[in-house]
Amino acid sequence: GPGATIGGMCATRCSGSLAVRYGTMRDNVINLQAVLPDGDVVKTGSRARKSAAGYDLTRLIIGSEGTLGVITEVTLRLQKLPSHSVVAMCNFQTVKDAADVAIATMHSGIQVSRVELLDEVQIRAINMANGKSLPEVPTLMFEFIGTEAYALEQTLLVQKIAAEHHGSDFVFVEEPNAKEELWKIRKEALWAGFAMKPDHEAMITDVCVPLSRLAECISVSKQLLDASPLTCLVIAHAGDGNFHTIILFDPTQEEERREAERLNHFMVHTALSMEGTCTGEHGVGTGKMKYLEKELGMESLRTMKRIKAALDPNNIMNPGKLIPPHVCI
Amino acid sequence: GPGATIGGMCATRCSGSLAVRYGTMRDNVINLQAVLPDGDVVKTGSRARKSAAGYDLTRLIIGSEGTLGVITEVTLRLQKLPSHSVVAMCNFQTVKDAADVAIATMHSGIQVSRVELLDEVQIRAINMANGKSLPEVPTLMFEFIGTEAYALEQTLLVQKIAAEHHGSDFVFVEEPNAKEELWKIRKEALWAGFAMKPDHEAMITDVCVPLSRLAECISVSKQLLDASPLTCLVIAHAGDGNFHTIILFDPTQEEERREAERLNHFMVHTALSMEGTCTGEHGVGTGKMKYLEKELGMESLRTMKRIKAALDPNNIMNPGKLIPPHVCI
Repeated sequence: GPGATIGGMCATRCSGSLAVRYGTMRDNVINLQAVLPDGDVVKTGSRARKSAAGYDLTRLIIGSEGTLGVITEVTLRLQKLPSHSVVAMCNFQTVKDAADVAIATMHSGIQVSRVELLDEVQIRAINMANGKSLPEVPTLMFEFIGTEAYALEQTLLVQKIAAEHHGSDFVFVEEPNAKEELWKIRKEALWAGFAMKPDHEAMITDVCVPLSRLAECISVSKQLLDASPLTCLVIAHAGDGNFHTIILFDPTQEEERREAERLNHFMVHTALSMEGTCTGEHGVGTGKMKYLEKELGMESLRTMKRIKAALDPNNIMNPGKLIPPHVCI
Repeated sequence: GPGATIGGMCATRCSGSLAVRYGTMRDNVINLQAVLPDGDVVKTGSRARKSAAGYDLTRLIIGSEGTLGVITEVTLRLQKLPSHSVVAMCNFQTVKDAADVAIATMHSGIQVSRVELLDEVQIRAINMANGKSLPEVPTLMFEFIGTEAYALEQTLLVQKIAAEHHGSDFVFVEEPNAKEELWKIRKEALWAGFAMKPDHEAMITDVCVPLSRLAECISVSKQLLDASPLTCLVIAHAGDGNFHTIILFDPTQEEERREAERLNHFMVHTALSMEGTCTGEHGVGTGKMKYLEKELGMESLRTMKRIKAALDPNNIMNPGKLIPPHVCI
């Protein structure tokens, strides 16, 4: 499946869980030290939280997946832990309703800290793996942060939005152990998926679309997934318009791999037709190279290759990754 | 004085006024269309709010000050207007107290939308220009946003922090006209400064330091500014650790220009010694080129020049700007 290098992964990871309020992890990197192909050690910034001092080499190297150099030091912008937080959960009849609530919440201006969507297959996996008995329906999980009064106020506002979209069983918790217990559902989702089919591999998709198109994109994808013989679990960082499908397939069965690829292709093309991206956070690696021309155009890829050639003329840094081989300078 | 190109300015401007809550303007740019030196028209992203699809050309071009291409289209991430806001103002005996309150507010985890520091000279300029009678002392201005209850809750928390640092005359307003009237003070600050010395020019500094060093940086700078024969006004985007000094000088007097440059140099070097940057938002242009090696190192500048040479081999895009002439590939 699509896979980025460790370098790329490090720098783009964690974007899901804290994405909405604090931005992605890359937004919180203010300086890097990196070793370039010629042995130069570069420092890309200062410790100031904003700067206009020259080209933004920090962001150029983040997400370059090891093709421009090796990151040896990272300076992060720290965030104060919120004084209070609330974790909430709500059930829906359809993924479209759930996605619509995520969109409406973001559009309402509520500063939600996390909003995660899990489809009914994902919930079934969690029930099976962890001996739970959650209703096996599309589910939203939220985190609200701030002062105690504000976190509660936001919770009640979202409860109202959920009710307007056929949401049911809205629950929220404030006690630390209860919050941890609830978030565990989300955190163990991937492993619960694997537990469903122990000998299977997972192809994990990573499309991201403009928030206003998320409900449509998930709905269209879900129709296809439900009709497939493969087991597919949807888990979305809904506040970002980013969603993952965990497509489980038997690696010894060539036709199952082909089916997984067909589903992945379909979702990527659906996302691109909605002006989205083939990868919201996992990166390009080799698996997503084939989609970049459609997403960004040949001029953009040529520009990337010119930068790669200028900084790594001997192509010694993670060769063959990120830039499709047919791109000419 | 230091001046970036229009391209660079556009992309880095507005970072002050909405910096804290929503990030700088550059953080809200999700896609660019740009014409490169060879005539290629590149699209740097999709309309998804996050992406890991290849090198971040969006951020590379933002802040490149027209040296890599001409931006012809910008896609912004929109933000919902807050349902409620409060504008507050508070006086202090010293700029250090004022800066300490800005720092303590940010460190407290309060999601302040704006926090601006004006020194007593800046307030005097505003009184003179606009016929006001504000106390001529270091002053902080805040904006808090959210729900009505939350904006008020934050206001009261900051009022408490201010009181702990000798703050006085804490006032806040919620009525739209009153808020506009109060923000006008900040918005017209630069013009009020010019009005003080109509035939003078202004050299505007733009250092930015780690937030924890802001009070020290402003205090040290202020001692120097107060001892100078020139009129100097301090205005800081304090939540970012970014502060501007408007140094007024008579352009017909060479020694005044030299004095202005001396003050600017001192502040830049003070900021750099605190791991800050010579420019938080205004850019490099030609005036700040001389500081970049100290701030970022020659390896970093060489990398920038390699990128410039790869994308603009004939050096036709804003030549002579941003990268110091002595940098060799």
